[in-house]
Amino acid sequence: MIFKTLWRKKPKLDDKSSEIINNSDKFNFKTTVETRFSDFDMMGHVNNAVYFTYLENARTRYWQEIVKWDWKKTGIVLAHAELDFIKPVLLHEKISIYVRTVRIGRSSFELEYKIVKNSNGSDEVCSTGKTTCIAVSYQDKRPTEIPAEERLRMINFEQL
Amino acid sequence: MIFKTLWRKKPKLDDKSSEIINNSDKFNFKTTVETRFSDFDMMGHVNNAVYFTYLENARTRYWQEIVKWDWKKTGIVLAHAELDFIKPVLLHEKISIYVRTVRIGRSSFELEYKIVKNSNGSDEVCSTGKTTCIAVSYQDKRPTEIPAEERLRMINFEQL
Amino acid sequence: MIFKTLWRKKPKLDDKSSEIINNSDKFNFKTTVETRFSDFDMMGHVNNAVYFTYLENARTRYWQEIVKWDWKKTGIVLAHAELDFIKPVLLHEKISIYVRTVRIGRSSFELEYKIVKNSNGSDEVCSTGKTTCIAVSYQDKRPTEIPAEERLRMINFEQL
Amino acid sequence: MIFKTLWRKKPKLDDKSSEIINNSDKFNFKTTVETRFSDFDMMGHVNNAVYFTYLENARTRYWQEIVKWDWKKTGIVLAHAELDFIKPVLLHEKISIYVRTVRIGRSSFELEYKIVKNSNGSDEVCSTGKTTCIAVSYQDKRPTEIPAEERLRMINFEQL
Repeated sequence: MIFKTLWRKKPKLDDKSSEIINNSDKFNFKTTVETRFSDFDMMGHVNNAVYFTYLENARTRYWQEIVKWDWKKTGIVLAHAELDFIKPVLLHEKISIYVRTVRIGRSSFELEYKIVKNSNGSDEVCSTGKTTCIAVSYQDKRPTEIPAEERLRMINFEQL
Repeated sequence: MIFKTLWRKKPKLDDKSSEIINNSDKFNFKTTVETRFSDFDMMGHVNNAVYFTYLENARTRYWQEIVKWDWKKTGIVLAHAELDFIKPVLLHEKISIYVRTVRIGRSSFELEYKIVKNSNGSDEVCSTGKTTCIAVSYQDKRPTEIPAEERLRMINFEQL
Repeated sequence: MIFKTLWRKKPKLDDKSSEIINNSDKFNFKTTVETRFSDFDMMGHVNNAVYFTYLENARTRYWQEIVKWDWKKTGIVLAHAELDFIKPVLLHEKISIYVRTVRIGRSSFELEYKIVKNSNGSDEVCSTGKTTCIAVSYQDKRPTEIPAEERLRMINFEQL
Repeated sequence: MIFKTLWRKKPKLDDKSSEIINNSDKFNFKTTVETRFSDFDMMGHVNNAVYFTYLENARTRYWQEIVKWDWKKTGIVLAHAELDFIKPVLLHEKISIYVRTVRIGRSSFELEYKIVKNSNGSDEVCSTGKTTCIAVSYQDKRPTEIPAEERLRMINFEQL
């Protein structure tokens, strides 16, 4: 295991622009989301667009707590977002979101999400999603390299 | 009428910090609002907080089209907002908002709103509201005088 | 104290339609609110309409935890909502909301709110608000008496 | 053309559960969307989740005006939604959305979207998206056949 980890990490540190893929299906980060009455639409479910707000909340925390992204230096924009809606979230249900980085490129990286509700002590998957994120320079609003330290923290946390 | 208008306008132009009150109940500005499916909550009505978004849309247009507020020079913040909910807005109903300035002080001014739905060709009042707005300087984020030209356009448009 | 409480409660129980006024300025209920990145507008503040969503969250919890409102039997609609915006809420600030019932009529009742941010261990008031709420019958969508048990729990909790 | 249309339609009408694919890249439906100040986040762009609300608005109109979906009989839920963010939408930009049905199955069907902004008279693509929709029965909340008439109107409008 240690060997594998060392072996996998080395080339990345030598060549930061190479792509790193997360082949595990394990999530190491989980956070809760407070639903709001106004999140629910006339169908009685959380409205589909609001799930994307939940993802935003979850990844913001992941970047703050785990990746410690330095927003003063580098921005992040979304290039792609998608969700599979599996089970609706109903009023008073308690939900959590799992987040993980599954691919790290030069300036782009991909996150995966799993929104679950607590159902008798175990997780019931409500939806799964993915976003492609791009590090951008505030100067020219163009893609820029993922900062080295943030990159390293993603790699280490996700054991890539 | 002309006499009254001239008489009422004069002191204001001499002393911009005096308070000008709109005693009429006439609205000279009306704009439409597109409702969105996600504006409606589980009760089947437009959610109460969303009405305040409607007011924001309406006053933004009023300031742009009538007052021609110069956002590059001076900001506006809300000090107070209130609404009386009279009739709920339902899906597919077409609504409009009336806006007018009812009080102009040195740095603060007050708007009144009437949200109506079209019902057989005539307006049915859904809610009435009020906001107190304050001109703020971008430099120190403190209240500042309402710019003279914007002030004049408010006065002229509202025939104060 | 006990005497006073008994004395004050008695007439209310005899005549539930009489109006009960809360003259204290004490709040006995406090709850937290999670801000979301999308709550903030281009000014960098929580958008004014979103505060009304915060109030909704806070009163929903108050009604659930304290008043134990039975939503299956009786609905509540808003007749009026207002807020004074005192200090803006900024990204990453932790906020809480105080809620209390200040007036109880036959079918209508009034809540007051105080939104605060934690600033060095003490509360800094960001805004204060008020809503007038009306118990409504699901059958005819008309105002109805506040249910006796809910009414009593409001009175007891607020020591009216 | 007529021949092709007849030929292509025949098997579908015989066997409604067969899948119909739209191979054209033409959009026949376009609608406008009013942006709101509160749609914009601190980055100065329309917030990513709000685009999904725009899609919802656009498809709701498409279903109402073109497909004339009978909501009283059959519901629709989303199974999947995705967007590619190409160019940000800024304040005061006028945007439109193109919608089309690209696949029709037994109970599921797929829509494609193109969000554009008007730039000197021509369309500039801001984002492209896709949703998988499922007809559901209100009785058992389970997938049900797309109603025959709605299905036919999709086919005819999209010239499938």
